[in-house]
Amino acid sequence: MHAISFIQDLAVIMLIAGVVTVIFHRLRQPVVLGYIVAGFLIGPHTPPFSLIHDEDTIKTLAELGVIFLMFCLGLEFSLRKLFKVGATAFIAAFLEIVLMIWIGYEIGRWFGWSTMDSLFLGAILAISSTTIIVKALNDLKMKNQRFAQLIFGVLIVEDILGIGIIALLSGIAVSGSVSSGEVFSTVGKLTLFMIVALVVGILLVPRVLAYVARFESNEMLLITVLGLCFGFCLLVVKLEYSMVLGAFLIGAIMAESRQLLKIERLIEPIRDMFSAIFFVAIGLMIDPAILVAYAWPIAVITVAVVLGKMVSCGLGAFIAGNDGRTSLRVGMGLSQIGEFSFIIAALGMTLQVTSDFLYPVAVAVSALTTLSTPYLIRAADPLSAKLAGWVPQRVGRVFGLYGEWLRSIQPQGQGALLASMIRRILLQVGVNLALVMAIFFSAGYFAGPIARYMGQWVSDPRWHNALIWGAALLLSLAFLIAAYRKLKALSMLLAEMGVKPEMAGRHTARVRKVVAEVIPLVSLLVIFLLLAALSASILPTSELLILVGLVAAAVAAVLWRWFIRVHTRMQVALLETLGSNQDSH
Amino acid sequence: MHAISFIQDLAVIMLIAGVVTVIFHRLRQPVVLGYIVAGFLIGPHTPPFSLIHDEDTIKTLAELGVIFLMFCLGLEFSLRKLFKVGATAFIAAFLEIVLMIWIGYEIGRWFGWSTMDSLFLGAILAISSTTIIVKALNDLKMKNQRFAQLIFGVLIVEDILGIGIIALLSGIAVSGSVSSGEVFSTVGKLTLFMIVALVVGILLVPRVLAYVARFESNEMLLITVLGLCFGFCLLVVKLEYSMVLGAFLIGAIMAESRQLLKIERLIEPIRDMFSAIFFVAIGLMIDPAILVAYAWPIAVITVAVVLGKMVSCGLGAFIAGNDGRTSLRVGMGLSQIGEFSFIIAALGMTLQVTSDFLYPVAVAVSALTTLSTPYLIRAADPLSAKLAGWVPQRVGRVFGLYGEWLRSIQPQGQGALLASMIRRILLQVGVNLALVMAIFFSAGYFAGPIARYMGQWVSDPRWHNALIWGAALLLSLAFLIAAYRKLKALSMLLAEMGVKPEMAGRHTARVRKVVAEVIPLVSLLVIFLLLAALSASILPTSELLILVGLVAAAVAAVLWRWFIRVHTRMQVALLETLGSNQDSH
Repeated sequence: MHAISFIQDLAVIMLIAGVVTVIFHRLRQPVVLGYIVAGFLIGPHTPPFSLIHDEDTIKTLAELGVIFLMFCLGLEFSLRKLFKVGATAFIAAFLEIVLMIWIGYEIGRWFGWSTMDSLFLGAILAISSTTIIVKALNDLKMKNQRFAQLIFGVLIVEDILGIGIIALLSGIAVSGSVSSGEVFSTVGKLTLFMIVALVVGILLVPRVLAYVARFESNEMLLITVLGLCFGFCLLVVKLEYSMVLGAFLIGAIMAESRQLLKIERLIEPIRDMFSAIFFVAIGLMIDPAILVAYAWPIAVITVAVVLGKMVSCGLGAFIAGNDGRTSLRVGMGLSQIGEFSFIIAALGMTLQVTSDFLYPVAVAVSALTTLSTPYLIRAADPLSAKLAGWVPQRVGRVFGLYGEWLRSIQPQGQGALLASMIRRILLQVGVNLALVMAIFFSAGYFAGPIARYMGQWVSDPRWHNALIWGAALLLSLAFLIAAYRKLKALSMLLAEMGVKPEMAGRHTARVRKVVAEVIPLVSLLVIFLLLAALSASILPTSELLILVGLVAAAVAAVLWRWFIRVHTRMQVALLETLGSNQDSH
Repeated sequence: MHAISFIQDLAVIMLIAGVVTVIFHRLRQPVVLGYIVAGFLIGPHTPPFSLIHDEDTIKTLAELGVIFLMFCLGLEFSLRKLFKVGATAFIAAFLEIVLMIWIGYEIGRWFGWSTMDSLFLGAILAISSTTIIVKALNDLKMKNQRFAQLIFGVLIVEDILGIGIIALLSGIAVSGSVSSGEVFSTVGKLTLFMIVALVVGILLVPRVLAYVARFESNEMLLITVLGLCFGFCLLVVKLEYSMVLGAFLIGAIMAESRQLLKIERLIEPIRDMFSAIFFVAIGLMIDPAILVAYAWPIAVITVAVVLGKMVSCGLGAFIAGNDGRTSLRVGMGLSQIGEFSFIIAALGMTLQVTSDFLYPVAVAVSALTTLSTPYLIRAADPLSAKLAGWVPQRVGRVFGLYGEWLRSIQPQGQGALLASMIRRILLQVGVNLALVMAIFFSAGYFAGPIARYMGQWVSDPRWHNALIWGAALLLSLAFLIAAYRKLKALSMLLAEMGVKPEMAGRHTARVRKVVAEVIPLVSLLVIFLLLAALSASILPTSELLILVGLVAAAVAAVLWRWFIRVHTRMQVALLETLGSNQDSH
């Protein structure tokens, strides 16, 4: 009779959720709040009794809800959008997250909560809610105004930083300590993993989807999408990252496929169904007794969220060169927390490092700030007018001058072109090096089993390492050569710019040539040292290392052109995928 | 870590299912077969080991798959379609089901299986597979031919009869015996329940959906649809029918709403996801050892399915007046078993009345007959040409004469109009009486608690019964009056037709009037006696019964016009819903 009690739970959830969301819609409140209230009503803490029998299965389905939520967030995210958002978004999002984590942590410590609780509280407050902002801006019909576009940019950057926070918190929660070295290594590994996953994913996944889409069967496309999504989540979990990260990444990868619109249309009902269960499951956990007991912290945190986000995002927007009115509107629009906070709170509970009260507190703060969001957005204009009246004219003039100064230092014309060229080259070098590092990491990771397997033919363990390391180097050659060529182009550019005839006189050409040759060689040396350090566990002895190096150099010399051709083909394929999707929008 | 093992299961299911279905699609085989094979590959019976960890949760999700499958079958079904299918479909489906149940039962007994196993085998063989036929006809590009339309008609009737079979089997499995009285009462109650559910559902559900659809939120519409679907399933389960029946009925009800197309679009991805899990779960249960051990029964049953369905459906189509070629094509198109068989086999396992081998045997037979379906459809034409050559001319002429005779006895012109009028009136009387019976049944069902509640004010238990019975009668008055009026119209029609002036001479008018008055009164008396018998448990003592009757008669006399108005309004609303949807298609 297990299935029947499960169906009963689903029936209760969907029926109550349906009724409550209709009521909330009529009250012009977000549907999400309706779900949480519905969960609260049918939950075990509300009289007369719990209407839910099989809480475990509901929680499992709620996890699916998180996966589909993040997957759809990934689908809406896209690399192109990330490249397009301006400095405003980066500065505002970064300021906001750092400040809010710090505020949250301090509030937690002030209430005497544990370090972990305080840290998670900080993370919970860090990220604003896309769902609720989109809903509020839609309702207010402000979606196309400039400040709304800035807000969407901030939200995109927040998503990617949020993913990083989740990865960091998982690491910290497992190790139980926060050391700056560990944070650095976690962020480094995470960045590496994300770059490799995106490059490999964008090379492979859109091709698979295009192949399946040729059969013109919605069912097959859906099953393939689900298979890739869950499969990638599983891979990410095996690498000890959060499933949430996996769902987001595979979504961002699929966002580059030509089938994006179809995938969104197919996945949306599934997301709606499971995310409803997720939000209802959140409501299930709310115990009114906790809300009463923690009324004071809830009030403090709510005020902190509204003021903290207003100041940090507003300041960020202003620093990046927006006028005061727009900055204030950006800050007030972002002043709430939502689904990301629930996911982080759930993470704390799953890892069993946070106290039971944190989740309901987060939900309560989210509910309060959600309710206040539309009013804050509407209040931004009158408030900025009033503030302009209060601020002494001289201060106002200083603010104005800052904006002008900022615009004056922006690179213009040829300078802007050059800056964008350098950025582009550095990005390409970075991506290539990330792939190389990923190859050496994988080699280190699988060295044990490979060495055991090789033991059948080669007995000397030193040769094992040499062979594995050499194979990794050979695999990396195409990327290393590409990085070298890019670095050379960059150094020629720099030599041209840096070594002016006024300074070097008649040696100009020669100095330029030396600079252009030296920089890439030095960089390559640094890269090799870095690789050696990173792959210390499988580094061969020095004689063998030299042998491996010589072999690699010989291969590189002989197959130089072939490597370049292979790499170019991959690069073209990647850019084609990124570009073709742009056409189809 | 429960969630992670669950995600792992989903990942494995979707990945393998995706790959296998692509292969099956390329081999031009139905996707369903691919799912089953995928389940078999990852199942516990295939080396190297089971890739599935959390079989219970998968089975629960598979149940959801059944619900969504039947719900979508209901959405595609529609009352209008059922009214439109001709005699062919009814005769062929009925012949097929009776014959196949009998053949299946006899085969089971012949192999020495238990009564229950044999009975379920019969039911498993009874119903053909919509999915597989649609796929095969699509592939062969024969979907618009006449025989294909006949096949779709048969499938619609099969669905509704299949629902009846499931209800019957559940009843038999619980009571453990088959008595004709019980079968009669089960079928009667089921018909009653279905009529009431359809009438009440079509009055309420499309209104609710139209209301929610006004908000133009896919999410809210989806949640409402899911809530109504699971809620209705739950109600049906509480009434001790199968969930499958509930899903189908609520689907058929929603098929009458204006939002049908949108609902189908929203629910399809969810159905595809869960039905994939359902079919994979079927594959999980296949044990090759059982297939080898039961190779002989599987072969016999496969041959029986192909020949039995060919003969029964072909014969049914021929009896209903189709030519031999079309009849043969109908018979050969329907010669396979599919999803309904799995649902029935699963029912037997859930109720724990069938042996373990029955499910894999059913799956094997389904796989074999699915593979043969396209070849059989293609072979129908050559075969019918060959058969025509073999049959002696005289026999052929007899067959031809049968067709002519059949067409000659069809009512034509005014006769056909009259027949359709009489059918219509009888249908309306039937629906009204079904509603009345449902009211009395409910009164009997809730009599206990109501009487306890009334005990606070009325102490005499005889008065309890009288009040409950009286209330039921008052509630039924509108329907009874409507039935009476329809019966009167019918008897006037019959009097006009039956009492000809040639017979009754100058008394014609008077005799007609007597007939027209007597028939409805006699019918009403019969109805009252029937109601009294059905509500025996709450029937008041005779004095009180007379009192109740008098009160009801007085109310009916006073509010006669009001009752008619209310009833007409309901009828108009019902017909509007049925009609408006027709416009929107």
